Amino acid sequence: MSVPDDRPDRDDGTGSGADLHLELPAVGARRTALAQALRDAVRSGRLAGGTRLPPYRALAADLGLARSVVADAYAELVAEGWFTARQGSGTRVTEGAATAAVRAAETSPAPEGPRHDLLQGKPDPACFPRGPWAASTRRALAEAPTEAFGPGDPRGRPELRRALAAYLSRARGVRTGPENVVVCSGFANGLRLLATVRPRDWAVEAYGLPFHHGILESAGVRPHPVAVDEDGARTGGLPGRARTLLLTPAHQFPTGGRLLPARRAAAVEWARTTGGLIVEDDYDGEFRYDRRPVGAVQGLAPEHVVYAGSLSKSLSPAIRLGWLVVPDQLIGPVLAAKGQRESWASALDQLALADFIECGAYDRHVRRMRRRYRDRRDQLVSALAVRAPEVRVTGISAGLHAVLELPPGTEVPALAAARAAGLALDGLSGYQHPADPDPPREGLVVGYAAPPDAAFARALEALAATLSAQLAGRGRPARPDRGPAA
Amino acid sequence: MSVPDDRPDRDDGTGSGADLHLELPAVGARRTALAQALRDAVRSGRLAGGTRLPPYRALAADLGLARSVVADAYAELVAEGWFTARQGSGTRVTEGAATAAVRAAETSPAPEGPRHDLLQGKPDPACFPRGPWAASTRRALAEAPTEAFGPGDPRGRPELRRALAAYLSRARGVRTGPENVVVCSGFANGLRLLATVRPRDWAVEAYGLPFHHGILESAGVRPHPVAVDEDGARTGGLPGRARTLLLTPAHQFPTGGRLLPARRAAAVEWARTTGGLIVEDDYDGEFRYDRRPVGAVQGLAPEHVVYAGSLSKSLSPAIRLGWLVVPDQLIGPVLAAKGQRESWASALDQLALADFIECGAYDRHVRRMRRRYRDRRDQLVSALAVRAPEVRVTGISAGLHAVLELPPGTEVPALAAARAAGLALDGLSGYQHPADPDPPREGLVVGYAAPPDAAFARALEALAATLSAQLAGRGRPARPDRGPAA
Repeated sequence: MSVPDDRPDRDDGTGSGADLHLELPAVGARRTALAQALRDAVRSGRLAGGTRLPPYRALAADLGLARSVVADAYAELVAEGWFTARQGSGTRVTEGAATAAVRAAETSPAPEGPRHDLLQGKPDPACFPRGPWAASTRRALAEAPTEAFGPGDPRGRPELRRALAAYLSRARGVRTGPENVVVCSGFANGLRLLATVRPRDWAVEAYGLPFHHGILESAGVRPHPVAVDEDGARTGGLPGRARTLLLTPAHQFPTGGRLLPARRAAAVEWARTTGGLIVEDDYDGEFRYDRRPVGAVQGLAPEHVVYAGSLSKSLSPAIRLGWLVVPDQLIGPVLAAKGQRESWASALDQLALADFIECGAYDRHVRRMRRRYRDRRDQLVSALAVRAPEVRVTGISAGLHAVLELPPGTEVPALAAARAAGLALDGLSGYQHPADPDPPREGLVVGYAAPPDAAFARALEALAATLSAQLAGRGRPARPDRGPAA
Repeated sequence: MSVPDDRPDRDDGTGSGADLHLELPAVGARRTALAQALRDAVRSGRLAGGTRLPPYRALAADLGLARSVVADAYAELVAEGWFTARQGSGTRVTEGAATAAVRAAETSPAPEGPRHDLLQGKPDPACFPRGPWAASTRRALAEAPTEAFGPGDPRGRPELRRALAAYLSRARGVRTGPENVVVCSGFANGLRLLATVRPRDWAVEAYGLPFHHGILESAGVRPHPVAVDEDGARTGGLPGRARTLLLTPAHQFPTGGRLLPARRAAAVEWARTTGGLIVEDDYDGEFRYDRRPVGAVQGLAPEHVVYAGSLSKSLSPAIRLGWLVVPDQLIGPVLAAKGQRESWASALDQLALADFIECGAYDRHVRRMRRRYRDRRDQLVSALAVRAPEVRVTGISAGLHAVLELPPGTEVPALAAARAAGLALDGLSGYQHPADPDPPREGLVVGYAAPPDAAFARALEALAATLSAQLAGRGRPARPDRGPAA
């Protein structure tokens, strides 16, 4: 169809009354179709740079569309840079838009990512409880006091601090009231606050997230590594200088051990006798599969432990919410480090989470995900038991990832083979702290929570085939007896 | 009524079957009433430390309540520290809880804040559009792609970047597409990113938020002040070393001038000729009352300006959302400074805001608030014109605050009198950069947006009475002719 430009403009170089012929498909969203037709017209050169577009009204009448549809499509192309809108002179095709589009298409082909994503650290995004979260948001917005929309409290919303204190007491054995809970925007943010408050002499587990070590170092902290084995960190012999100890007691990250009771006691005893502080990163404490979760170390000595958790594994990393449970004497310093509003969490998310916890939706979600992730874990273990029985799978009693142990010297070729097969995953040695004097433990860290079901099945198949081929090429199985590299 | 403890426990020191007598009011929320009755029982000593509470079932039956009500009330008191819950041994009254409560009540009397809050910087929290925001959240949650609940993109959600690019182009004259928008958690966060990227030689307006100067200094930047007058910053003679210039062109903060066109041009010319960067803080650009808003300086030279905005004034500081519009060559460095997830904004808030803008609710809210704040401004000007006609009120053509100019030497006594009258407000001189060589300008900075109507009327009355009394005691009126202190 043809659309005469009914507001001729002598300056536009295309003459007045330029026709605009657009073909829209008969079905589908009108705005999307119109926007695509307009883009195609620019890209093909039919709409030259500088051409003035017809007014909304005229194009809408001609195409049988609502004016708002045309207005929205124009706005979309303005936002994308195809059109330029100027007050008083209508909407025009941007000079050079077609060329830029062609260049962009030539120089940035759609990047081809790995076909199988087994990177650790991500919960299943498809299981986000959209309906219950929307209901909690609606209730929270309806019931919030007026001051909730004002500047707020650096500790976080009182509603959330109450809900978290009750939940953490009940579900994780944390001993706290709301007054010791400080809301933050995730564990990394909490760690930075603590590094600011205690800027020296941290001990960290010899295996951990390099990202966390980087946060400590950027705050001037140089961490001392503490050896870990399958029973967690060896807390019996901590470095003498250590004043703060970062631990993942429920599920050592990433090697997967659970801190032995005697080692929990040793850590607490160290804190009591030296005045040290334990920072307990309970990143996936809710997801324990084969027996009851162990309570937090914080419950043993609330005055010596900062307990830290977040929504990043239990619900979604897209909600930037975490929490610290802080001993009395550290509350002031932590709030001072938190400062004026800069990295505070959204008050609306805080209110929604308070409702979400209190109405039981959080417990329901955790139970549902625990079943789902346990099934995933079982699939992983079964697939490898059948296809690559030499592989020892460890760290699997909890969490969203497993470690596939590999003999010394074999991680690099195994990773290379995995990458060639389109698998995205990490090597275990990459999580070793650079100052750890021990030789690196080798293995693959496999996240099993996030992929959709069909993709996960394909990823497992690719992983099993890769490991099977790798190990078939070796003289000895990759059992924990740790035979020398063939 | 009396509740026998039907699970006797020989260790609890109170004997088995201890009676628990509670009186609940006949009306009102049951859980709240029960929790209060239990607190009172502990506070009065009737429930001693260590006493074991009756099981939910027994207390519920006796009081005619649902078990969940009793369970919730117990959980509340556990969370507050009054009760302690241990697996296997039921719920007990915390040792020392009554003493701690009495001590807290004795040592922390309810702090008596100022009666009249006229501090600048806060929009009206009572006007938060709860219903429309809830609707946007619901739609956003329903329509979001699965990956929205995953780890995310450091630039921010594409939906929001598209919506912001279109909105800022249309409403603020910003020239951008979505690819140059970087979402952050507020202006302060954006400023820190920019200070990281450009760590030296900033020029700042001689009057501004000390909080912002502090962010620059904590990033190692030592800012050079640029004089401001009623036409904004004097951009004609910028310090020779300056590489980055922080401006509030739409409404100089806090003095209130609008940057003259010639000074806008001078700033852009400076950036073009020296390769400098302008950071445009458009903190309240939507709220201009007496004529059309002026477009952003960014529209004059997109390649030399970072445009920054946030929701803190236009909607609420409780949603931690802001945005930078960044020239191409700075996008990489800004994203690198943003780093891994730490201070990212909630993806759910981002999706909700995208919908809120696109469905027109944001425009409606801004228009409604513009009318409301203009009325407030008019009330302030009228009240002072009647009661303290000597006061010159400036900076009132836009924004959420005004400046009441005072003659030299009179700000300190005026502030003292205001505080004695229960008024919370700031002195103008407190916003002067310490390195500004000029003598401080004196005045009061009055925020008029946030108080409820009745409170605002009372605050205005108190302010007018205070100023009237102050000025009556002086030999000369506080006109801009700046008479010497009497």
